[in-house]
Amino acid sequence: MAEVIDKTALFEFLCRMGDNTLILGHRVSEWCGHAPVLEEDIALANTALDLIGQTQLWLGYAAEVEGKGRSADDLAFLRDAWDFRNILMVELPNGDFGQTLMRQFLFDAWQVIMLRHLQDSSDQTIREIAEKASKEVAYHLERSAGTVVGLGDGTPESHARMQAAIDRLWPYVGEMFAGDKTDQAMFEAGIAPEPGALRSEYDALISSTMSEATLTIPEGDFHHKGGRNGQMHTEHLGHILCTMQWLQRAYPGAKW
Amino acid sequence: MAEVIDKTALFEFLCRMGDNTLILGHRVSEWCGHAPVLEEDIALANTALDLIGQTQLWLGYAAEVEGKGRSADDLAFLRDAWDFRNILMVELPNGDFGQTLMRQFLFDAWQVIMLRHLQDSSDQTIREIAEKASKEVAYHLERSAGTVVGLGDGTPESHARMQAAIDRLWPYVGEMFAGDKTDQAMFEAGIAPEPGALRSEYDALISSTMSEATLTIPEGDFHHKGGRNGQMHTEHLGHILCTMQWLQRAYPGAKW
Repeated sequence: MAEVIDKTALFEFLCRMGDNTLILGHRVSEWCGHAPVLEEDIALANTALDLIGQTQLWLGYAAEVEGKGRSADDLAFLRDAWDFRNILMVELPNGDFGQTLMRQFLFDAWQVIMLRHLQDSSDQTIREIAEKASKEVAYHLERSAGTVVGLGDGTPESHARMQAAIDRLWPYVGEMFAGDKTDQAMFEAGIAPEPGALRSEYDALISSTMSEATLTIPEGDFHHKGGRNGQMHTEHLGHILCTMQWLQRAYPGAKW
Repeated sequence: MAEVIDKTALFEFLCRMGDNTLILGHRVSEWCGHAPVLEEDIALANTALDLIGQTQLWLGYAAEVEGKGRSADDLAFLRDAWDFRNILMVELPNGDFGQTLMRQFLFDAWQVIMLRHLQDSSDQTIREIAEKASKEVAYHLERSAGTVVGLGDGTPESHARMQAAIDRLWPYVGEMFAGDKTDQAMFEAGIAPEPGALRSEYDALISSTMSEATLTIPEGDFHHKGGRNGQMHTEHLGHILCTMQWLQRAYPGAKW
């Protein structure tokens, strides 16, 4: 019985990891061909590819743990909105370039810390995924933090936009650290850290970058929630799925 | 053999009629809950409903003529972009309220004239559809022409926007009158008029409204094409289909 409960929680945990990277990867890919300069266009496309690659690993393992014969592709393309477990922040529309990079920074910082902890997981597959992904994510963070500093401590226009970006996104940060009984089960099994335990490390990391960027982290700890436990997503997720899943829905079982 | 050719052409003709009203109806429905005042919101939603209702008749008859067991819903929700036969104008994004109403006017004027001619069709079902639809469309034209005049002969801002709207849309008007061998077959069978034959009547109708609206019809007779013969749609159609067809694609055969 304990084994059954663990598998359900583990599947849920892996979907949370994989859905975050899937939906953010899809959002970032929307910039392809639209970024302000060619260098950024290529960098964003590569970031999107990294995130989709990580999705393949997380959802592939989720499917294996579930043991119902579904594949990573089935989970990505044939689930409906209510089965997605990504945090709300990653499904928000991109906004302008500054907002996109601010979100990337806020997510990268969390991911770097999370993946560092997951390299001590009691689950070998998770250790391996975390080790592989952490190399990519370290580079994502280097880039996004650099952009946040460059634009935050840039012109009055770019500064104002970056401050607006953190003001807009801040109420979505807290969801990354709001644990529930799935997280408790993962923690007790030595699989993953408690989300809340990462908060002080996270705050330290982003504070120094924000300070260098001359940006002010908003006060207050209200945060939107409902994405990572699947209770309620924003309307944006449905629109993402319309586009993302259309081919597999229209041509079921299509092979390249 | 003549019978087979006629049915193919008739099916094509009916898809052109029904796809125009389907795609424009979908576009207009996007305003629901977003129009500038409540009265306009309700009016636009009603226009969209009329157009979708007409679609049911046109595509229902198309499916019957095709005789392959498909329904109007199958044609609307299970065809891919290359099988759509709407003109390009109706698939363009709405733009602002003025652009939406200018397009509506340009389409309504054509539809009023076309439906008047189709009430003399040799095909009884088409006569009946045309008679029913023409009552709704006469009202659409009254509204859209009134709005074009009100905004065109309004403030400098509204005038400028309406002139920009006709400048943007004019290159899409000509496609309504560009006949091909399908139209020739319909004409010879007494089913429908040649598209080109409606042009002078159309120009007279819109000229008087444009003049009253103090707007200038652009010069030049270049026009985009490819929609009504299915050779090439704009990228916008694929996005419309993603949204419009998602439910039927995700839940095949779903019943209410």
